Amino acid sequence: MRKFFFSAAAVTCVAFIFSFTDNAPVKVNPGDNDSTVVAKIYNEALANGQAYDVLSGLCQKAPKRLSGSPGAAVAVNYMKGVMDSYGFDKVWLQPCTVPHWVRGNPESGKLIFMTGTKKTQHTVNVCALGGSQPTPDKGLQAEVVEVTTFAQLDSLGEAGVKGKFVFYNHKFNPTTISTFSAYGEDVQYRWQGATSAEKYGAVGVIVRSVTASIDTCPHTGAERSDSLAGKIPACAISTVDADYLDDQIRHGVRPEFFLKMNCQWLPDEHSFNVIGELLGSEHPEQVIVVGGHLDAWDLGTGAQDDGAGCVQSIEAVRIFKTLGIRPKHTIRCVCFMNEENGGKGGKAYADSAAIKKEKHIAAIESDAGGFSPRGFGLSMSQDQRREIEGWKPLLLPYGIYDFSGEGGGSDIDPLQKQGVPMIGLWPDNARYFDYHHTEIDIMKNVNKRELLMGAAAMSSLIYLIDKYGL
Amino acid sequence: MRKFFFSAAAVTCVAFIFSFTDNAPVKVNPGDNDSTVVAKIYNEALANGQAYDVLSGLCQKAPKRLSGSPGAAVAVNYMKGVMDSYGFDKVWLQPCTVPHWVRGNPESGKLIFMTGTKKTQHTVNVCALGGSQPTPDKGLQAEVVEVTTFAQLDSLGEAGVKGKFVFYNHKFNPTTISTFSAYGEDVQYRWQGATSAEKYGAVGVIVRSVTASIDTCPHTGAERSDSLAGKIPACAISTVDADYLDDQIRHGVRPEFFLKMNCQWLPDEHSFNVIGELLGSEHPEQVIVVGGHLDAWDLGTGAQDDGAGCVQSIEAVRIFKTLGIRPKHTIRCVCFMNEENGGKGGKAYADSAAIKKEKHIAAIESDAGGFSPRGFGLSMSQDQRREIEGWKPLLLPYGIYDFSGEGGGSDIDPLQKQGVPMIGLWPDNARYFDYHHTEIDIMKNVNKRELLMGAAAMSSLIYLIDKYGL
Repeated sequence: MRKFFFSAAAVTCVAFIFSFTDNAPVKVNPGDNDSTVVAKIYNEALANGQAYDVLSGLCQKAPKRLSGSPGAAVAVNYMKGVMDSYGFDKVWLQPCTVPHWVRGNPESGKLIFMTGTKKTQHTVNVCALGGSQPTPDKGLQAEVVEVTTFAQLDSLGEAGVKGKFVFYNHKFNPTTISTFSAYGEDVQYRWQGATSAEKYGAVGVIVRSVTASIDTCPHTGAERSDSLAGKIPACAISTVDADYLDDQIRHGVRPEFFLKMNCQWLPDEHSFNVIGELLGSEHPEQVIVVGGHLDAWDLGTGAQDDGAGCVQSIEAVRIFKTLGIRPKHTIRCVCFMNEENGGKGGKAYADSAAIKKEKHIAAIESDAGGFSPRGFGLSMSQDQRREIEGWKPLLLPYGIYDFSGEGGGSDIDPLQKQGVPMIGLWPDNARYFDYHHTEIDIMKNVNKRELLMGAAAMSSLIYLIDKYGL
Repeated sequence: MRKFFFSAAAVTCVAFIFSFTDNAPVKVNPGDNDSTVVAKIYNEALANGQAYDVLSGLCQKAPKRLSGSPGAAVAVNYMKGVMDSYGFDKVWLQPCTVPHWVRGNPESGKLIFMTGTKKTQHTVNVCALGGSQPTPDKGLQAEVVEVTTFAQLDSLGEAGVKGKFVFYNHKFNPTTISTFSAYGEDVQYRWQGATSAEKYGAVGVIVRSVTASIDTCPHTGAERSDSLAGKIPACAISTVDADYLDDQIRHGVRPEFFLKMNCQWLPDEHSFNVIGELLGSEHPEQVIVVGGHLDAWDLGTGAQDDGAGCVQSIEAVRIFKTLGIRPKHTIRCVCFMNEENGGKGGKAYADSAAIKKEKHIAAIESDAGGFSPRGFGLSMSQDQRREIEGWKPLLLPYGIYDFSGEGGGSDIDPLQKQGVPMIGLWPDNARYFDYHHTEIDIMKNVNKRELLMGAAAMSSLIYLIDKYGL
């Protein structure tokens, strides 16, 4: 692209532009109409947005912050410090008790098979699934049996499975347009693969990483952590290794798998949600809450999942403060703890809201990555949905067009039982599962502009909900 | 994100899903309705798409392919080979004569200033602007004068400029929602900075890289290459270095700049557009053309600009062939040569079309990167625009919602004079100028799924234009 591009997509150009020469915030005035306020929100986010720098700080100071870990405690203090520095009306820590699972030493895995009369070993990148049991100290070696579905597992039964590793090789469907839908089809093998296999006497499970990306890094994630949790070791392998293993088996090789993991469950820990708010000028007892989750899987630094959602949520409220928008209702941002393996933070928040009889006007979550936002998923009454869809012309100039799906998020789900309208930020989803739960979920895979556009979208929506109600 | 995401954004879920277990193409049947055909096009792109692998090959085999270079010749042969391998009805090379500018040895630049009584040197990452004149062999050293606008330059006049480097430090406006619009505001300093400064006796110009990204790599690009081309050396420096230099000057430092470049103009070269087509079954003489440009700036490998557009264009036609869609009109893909510094390929194509009296139904260009597509810009009559907008419900399930802007592209612009309706693919634009014309415009900054979604969008649009006309 050389010189000028046709002024393509004019809808994105009607947005107001303010001078940014000195980066001074352009305050909101009482007489500003909605489109002007939304323009000022975007202007502030894009000219002076802090979310990217805050996220960078989080990933540097608390790169490993799985629930119960020392890093999680650092993250709590860091985010509280950020909120304090913004001068919110109130900032506090809300206690919750969280499970504490640790990965232990780096895991090791290998395939062992005969090539003619020669024994061959192939190193495999493995990671324990979150919540997995360890192997014996010396490791665990057994034959591998491959299945692609639970139905196949069931048809093999004990005769085909006992004493073996079950290898779940259900491929992520690249043709499903929403990668979240494709994820939904796949994640059951990670979630309940161990419990399903152990009932037939399997000694462990190997799960193909849940991603469309053909890469060499295993993607972790929780297996079910309730009383039905697996009692046999469960690991993920990369899609490249999964294809290799599948290929060997198709060619008649009967490989054995060696796995060594010393992950373990430790006693529960005390932890916190981090909460900040601007008090409502008319209805301080009525709350619009926006959040993401602060805990993250421990392979990368949780930049996209879900540091992004946390910093966007704080940014959405910071923009109100900076622009001098005094909300009618209380605007609250929450960095929830323990989304990944327990949901205790979300439950603590909802329990507290119920006890205090707080009325929540709406709950918004960003937990689909800090990518270019495209819309919001909405779970609420038809009237409420129509209300929000009526604001579409205000948001379309910024590329927010899609309000058609359901919405919410794991952390705010417990509020839904209290009848709270649920909203989920809906970013572009092409890249999310490339990084999800891996060592490459790091800052370099977060784009500053995309992140800030999401924060501005949420801040704008909160502004409209606060002004018009739901 | 732990387990399930709410089935957000249902519009993206109504798309048909076909089994992809064996990756066999799902052919189009005569009775298929439009939504089924579009679904099959997306299915083929996402399950079996070749564009990413072809792009990877291009960037490996011809990473440096500025017009007239040996790499450009390699690229021509490689892309012709790809088209040949797809069994298109006709594949050919269309000659054009292109300018040949070479960068020469790596450029060097430094700032020299006094810190107290001590002489300090600061190395600056520089690159020649495309088409620049060289410095003398031993380099060029002079004082720096900073301006942010041409008006400032004019007010300084000869008294303020003569014998100096003019440093254009016009900042990319991050609050402009379309980054292409922001680019349009900025690029004039790159384009005509040298010609504007030399008339006041400047010895050279230093241009702040045209990007919102605060990074350390200079972004090249053409200065005007016609008879009004600059006669003094012109270079770009990174935004980090531009901010540093600006900061020094604000603090009263009067730095000198040292620049050494031995770029040069060589005689024009013979080159080619690479063209492939499927002949129309009813109107073979009527053409729908889709293209990108094959030449690329020489710092990176031109992965996004515009290898992406080339491979998407070829892929759009490959999908027709693979799915057995026999178009009524001739469907033609073109890898244009010399978009970046001359536009000779686009002109040769339009000239040939005029001579042969080919009727073009529509011309489509992809030259805004292989990012997640959001729509198409359209430059055509209101009736034609309404026709295309009428197809929105078919494309919305795939995230294609924006048809509101103008469209086209440098390569197809010459066809507009023949009255051809112009269309530009409009991808998400948050990241484009992070990579544009730099050493980081490389494969690792291309996402496979995003690239393929763009190819499928173009293929679907071509299908509809072919079926219903414009």
